[in-house]
Amino acid sequence: MRDVAIIGVGVTKFGELWDKSFRSLGLEAGIKAIEDAKLSGEEIDGVFIGNLSAGRFIDQQHIDALIADYSGMASHHIPATRVEAGGASGGVAFRQAVMAVASGLHNTVLVGGAEKMTDLDDASINHIMDSTADAEWEAGMGLTLASLYAIIARRLIHEGTATREEIASVAVNSHFHGELNPGAQFRKAVPIETVLRSGPVASPLGMFDCAPITDGAAAVVLCPLDEAKKYTDKYVKVSATAQASDTLALFQRPDITTFGATAAAAQKAYSLAGITAKDINVAEVHDDFSVAGILALQDLGLYKKGEAGKAFLNGDTRVGSGKVAVNTSGGLKARGYPIGAAGVAQIVEIAEQLRGTADKRQVKDAKYGLAQSVGGTGSAVTVSILEAV
Amino acid sequence: MRDVAIIGVGVTKFGELWDKSFRSLGLEAGIKAIEDAKLSGEEIDGVFIGNLSAGRFIDQQHIDALIADYSGMASHHIPATRVEAGGASGGVAFRQAVMAVASGLHNTVLVGGAEKMTDLDDASINHIMDSTADAEWEAGMGLTLASLYAIIARRLIHEGTATREEIASVAVNSHFHGELNPGAQFRKAVPIETVLRSGPVASPLGMFDCAPITDGAAAVVLCPLDEAKKYTDKYVKVSATAQASDTLALFQRPDITTFGATAAAAQKAYSLAGITAKDINVAEVHDDFSVAGILALQDLGLYKKGEAGKAFLNGDTRVGSGKVAVNTSGGLKARGYPIGAAGVAQIVEIAEQLRGTADKRQVKDAKYGLAQSVGGTGSAVTVSILEAV
Repeated sequence: MRDVAIIGVGVTKFGELWDKSFRSLGLEAGIKAIEDAKLSGEEIDGVFIGNLSAGRFIDQQHIDALIADYSGMASHHIPATRVEAGGASGGVAFRQAVMAVASGLHNTVLVGGAEKMTDLDDASINHIMDSTADAEWEAGMGLTLASLYAIIARRLIHEGTATREEIASVAVNSHFHGELNPGAQFRKAVPIETVLRSGPVASPLGMFDCAPITDGAAAVVLCPLDEAKKYTDKYVKVSATAQASDTLALFQRPDITTFGATAAAAQKAYSLAGITAKDINVAEVHDDFSVAGILALQDLGLYKKGEAGKAFLNGDTRVGSGKVAVNTSGGLKARGYPIGAAGVAQIVEIAEQLRGTADKRQVKDAKYGLAQSVGGTGSAVTVSILEAV
Repeated sequence: MRDVAIIGVGVTKFGELWDKSFRSLGLEAGIKAIEDAKLSGEEIDGVFIGNLSAGRFIDQQHIDALIADYSGMASHHIPATRVEAGGASGGVAFRQAVMAVASGLHNTVLVGGAEKMTDLDDASINHIMDSTADAEWEAGMGLTLASLYAIIARRLIHEGTATREEIASVAVNSHFHGELNPGAQFRKAVPIETVLRSGPVASPLGMFDCAPITDGAAAVVLCPLDEAKKYTDKYVKVSATAQASDTLALFQRPDITTFGATAAAAQKAYSLAGITAKDINVAEVHDDFSVAGILALQDLGLYKKGEAGKAFLNGDTRVGSGKVAVNTSGGLKARGYPIGAAGVAQIVEIAEQLRGTADKRQVKDAKYGLAQSVGGTGSAVTVSILEAV
């Protein structure tokens, strides 16, 4: 296996982009990443796309071919592959692409994530997202993703692992960073009162505990590490990428205050990278619901059980705190959550941090960064570790 | 890169399986393949699933986790990945899995393909299939996959590349073999008159030129070639797997009487396997519409342009003819077409042929077999070559 590098990154503005199509968003992110890598599209020999459901959002299956086509690669018959793993679709696409380069079967690969969600009404959008839960045992019984995460939040509060205020502060942290990110959907810091008093969605979670509905796309370009210098000085090493699954239904797990798939993927990733959680300087975690941020920091081993909530509340997770900076992009909550794009956008943010190009969000001397992408209620999780070179 | 072997295969009955759920079909195929490989599920360290749209067919996204869960692998947090590439979903899943083992990142991998289509009404099913064409330039204008393939058929006839009778004989060939396959949806040979006189779908194509709507699942187990003997004597070598894309819309190609993606993937596959088209003894090709079978044999280099139709009409494509046996499983037309399962079921058939376990369909002394899986109108194509050991 060869080591792999990220040599280019690109991301669109995230938001309710009424005037942009799925095609134009995917194309914009892809071209940005290819230009950032100082490549031409003809040098790309493979494409991987993370996408939850263009079939249902825009009535278009087979977007692997669509993206290859609109990126001008169809005439070279470049293979393009779409992967889906609920909210982890982007993370899984990234891992497939790393594997493709590591194996030697591909050399220079574009990984994209894209979702165009706002062409549908809100009820249909939520219905699609809820179908990443178990259709027979959860969604079919009326459970939504929000209510499943609310059950987790209640259990954390019941067990004394986190308070309602600590859970709310995950969203406060993301909004704090979102204000610093020009590409974020919500560029506005909010006080904790805003989260606590926001309209109820599934008690105890309110509107500000839930990531928004978003259009957007993100892309990165990969090549073998030993060829990266040929293209750019701004490259980062992919030290590890790991993936794990769990039961689709939440009730089938022995403990709902931890995501076993995060813990398993993290353990594998640290081992592949030859580091421990202590070495991580910056992390993007999957805060589709605020409470997920607390599980993430604990299951990734960045904080002990019961300590992650305090870290969010105390501001230890903010850039400049000297501790692990969390969701400097604004996270899913403030940067936005175009589902298939989210996991790839996390990789873009971590790469920017390790290249030292994260502007006002820059974590000083960041050496190792981590991205965690989650599908359903932790039914699929990817953990990737990048390293500054 | 390591060489890869297929050590187990499994497939469900194909058909309108009203009494079977998506879950039970996926599970049945997976367990059959794992048992055939003489493994226990705990020895599997990765899962890849080809599926067109469980989201739309059964309102369940995130079937990567579902399959891992119901196969009993969730408790070990085994990574599971769903891929989609229209009709080529199964072929692409197979290629991803081969890459995973070849890279060394995975060792013993289950590849599944599954589709449960008959829970919806026919109009909805056709609508979903047609969304593998270009939603803006084709499906949105009223073109269906059947009408797109009818355009191709008309052009072939106009140019003198194939006659209507030759096109119809692709379906006759598939039905001839379907009668010999106990797992096929249609176990009945039909004379060419049945195809020619079948109800019109999109002229010149009639109902018997179109593959049916089918429920079913298929699975294979992969491991490194040099470990295969540990498990079984009945293994075959994966000599090559290649993938290519083309424009999503048919009108954007310079020539619609050839699928450039098939030609590109085939060229790559022959080169990786170190053989030529002349070495192939048995082939499964993607006959979702009869005319596609003629394009396939020509683009794969098995016949010259204008000769493939004659081969079908003369029966040269039948088992026992001494020439390349084509679609001995019954193909998509007679074995059935559960979309995400089709590409994996092709691999099962070729593996059975090379192991010598294809019963009444057995091609004598088959050394090399090929499987071609197609998405949309040739917008994504995989070509895999297996070899008897």
